[in-house]
Amino acid sequence: MERIDDLQCKGYRIIQDSEAFCYGTDAVLLANFAKQGVKRGRVFDLCTGNGIVPLLLAAKTEAESIYGIEIQREAVELARRSVALNEEARIHILEGDLCKIQEQRTAEGKSLASSFTVVTANPPYMQGDLQNPLEKKNIARHEVSCSFTDVSEAARYLLAPKGRFYLVHRPKRMAEIISILREKGLEPKRLQMVHSFVEGEAKLFLLEAVRGASVELRILPPLILYREKGVYTKELLEIYGVGAS
Amino acid sequence: MERIDDLQCKGYRIIQDSEAFCYGTDAVLLANFAKQGVKRGRVFDLCTGNGIVPLLLAAKTEAESIYGIEIQREAVELARRSVALNEEARIHILEGDLCKIQEQRTAEGKSLASSFTVVTANPPYMQGDLQNPLEKKNIARHEVSCSFTDVSEAARYLLAPKGRFYLVHRPKRMAEIISILREKGLEPKRLQMVHSFVEGEAKLFLLEAVRGASVELRILPPLILYREKGVYTKELLEIYGVGAS
Repeated sequence: MERIDDLQCKGYRIIQDSEAFCYGTDAVLLANFAKQGVKRGRVFDLCTGNGIVPLLLAAKTEAESIYGIEIQREAVELARRSVALNEEARIHILEGDLCKIQEQRTAEGKSLASSFTVVTANPPYMQGDLQNPLEKKNIARHEVSCSFTDVSEAARYLLAPKGRFYLVHRPKRMAEIISILREKGLEPKRLQMVHSFVEGEAKLFLLEAVRGASVELRILPPLILYREKGVYTKELLEIYGVGAS
Repeated sequence: MERIDDLQCKGYRIIQDSEAFCYGTDAVLLANFAKQGVKRGRVFDLCTGNGIVPLLLAAKTEAESIYGIEIQREAVELARRSVALNEEARIHILEGDLCKIQEQRTAEGKSLASSFTVVTANPPYMQGDLQNPLEKKNIARHEVSCSFTDVSEAARYLLAPKGRFYLVHRPKRMAEIISILREKGLEPKRLQMVHSFVEGEAKLFLLEAVRGASVELRILPPLILYREKGVYTKELLEIYGVGAS
C-alpha cells in the first residue's frame, strides 16, 4: 500500500510502500548527524532505498547536489517519484549495484571518483542467512547484495581527500566496522552512541570517518531517545523537527 | 612525600608517593569493570604502577592469584610494600619490561603463557614526544617504554583461550585500539563510555576484549561521573564504595 508522508521540514514529502521497507529513526538520525558536514557540498547516499536520506538532506542543507544509489528497481522508482513530487532538481537517483560504482556516471556523464565531499550510508545491518519472506525487506536489512567492506570501498572511491563518510549501524558490529574503515583509509573521527534510555545499552551508533585523516576520535555525548517510556527527549523531538513538547 | 591511603574496601590500604604517579579514577573504574570477570580466576595486571589495580581486585574479588608487572623500580618497591602492608599473599609484583613478558615466571617458576583468565591494563595514554619534567610520570603517562601494540601482545600471550582483557583508555585513541586488539585476536565484546556529565563528550572508555571470541560487541549504558558540578552520581559513589549520598 502506497502512502505519502510529510518529512516535517519545509514541506518535503516522501512516497513509501508499506509492504516494502519504510524509513525508520535510523535514517532520520543519520541525516541529522551528516547535515553539519554537508554545507554547499556534493553528497552521495549509498543504499538509498526510497531516497529518505537524500530527501532529508535536500530539506535540511544547501547541498549543491545529492546522489543516491539503490539496487532494487521498485525502490528506485519510488525514490524518483518522491524527487519529482518535491520538484527537487538537486537529487539524482541512480539504479545499480554499489559494488560496481566505477560504472556509474554523473548527470553530466563524468566519473564519480573522488568527487564527493560527503558520503552517507544506512547499510544493511545483518550478516548471514536469515531469510525474510519479503525479498525487498531482506535486501534492505541483510548483507545479501553488499557487505560492509563493499560499502566502505564505494565510500572510499566516491570521497574527495578529507571527504566525510557518515553512517549509522548496530553496536554489535562496531568493532569490525571500525577495523574495516581504517583498512580502507577512512579514519573514524566522531562517534555518537544512541540509547533508547540513559540506563540501557546502545541500540545504534552514528559515525563520521574522514578519508586520509589523522588518528583522533571524539566520542560525543550519548543521544538518548526517551526521557521515560513513551516520552521522547527534547533532543529527539528537535531532530524530528517537531520542537520540544 | 609518602602517604598511606585507605581503599574504602575491607580495610585495604595503599602506599603512594605524591611526587611520582598516584592512582586516579581510571584505575578505580578499571578494577570495578574487571571484577565481574575475575571470579576465582588468575589475574595479570600490566603497567601496574604502585599496584592499585591488584590491590583493588584483591579487596573486591576472590581471585586465586593476582600478578602485576611494572618497569620502574621505585613503583615496584612501593607496590611490594603495599602488598606486605595488607598481608596479601595472592598478589605477586614482578619487576620488568612487558615487551619481554616471555622471560617472566610465576612464583613457582612456571611459564606465564596462556595461564590467566583475566588481564587488566591502565596503560600510558599518550603518544609522541611530550616531555614531563618528572621522568617517573613521563613513563606512566607516555608510551616511552611500551606502545599499545606491545601491551596487546603481552595480553594475548598471558591469556588462556576465551580469557578476558580489560582496559581503560582515552576516546581519541579508541579506533586505533580496537583495530590493534582485533589484529591480535582479542575481540572487543563490551564497551562502556565514561562521561563527566551526560551532556559532554566521553573522557575515558572501558573495554572488555576476549581472546578468540566471535564478533559481537555490546555497548553498555554510559557511565556518568557527575550529576552536577561537584556532585558525584550514585553510580560513581557505589564504585568508590562510599554508598549513595
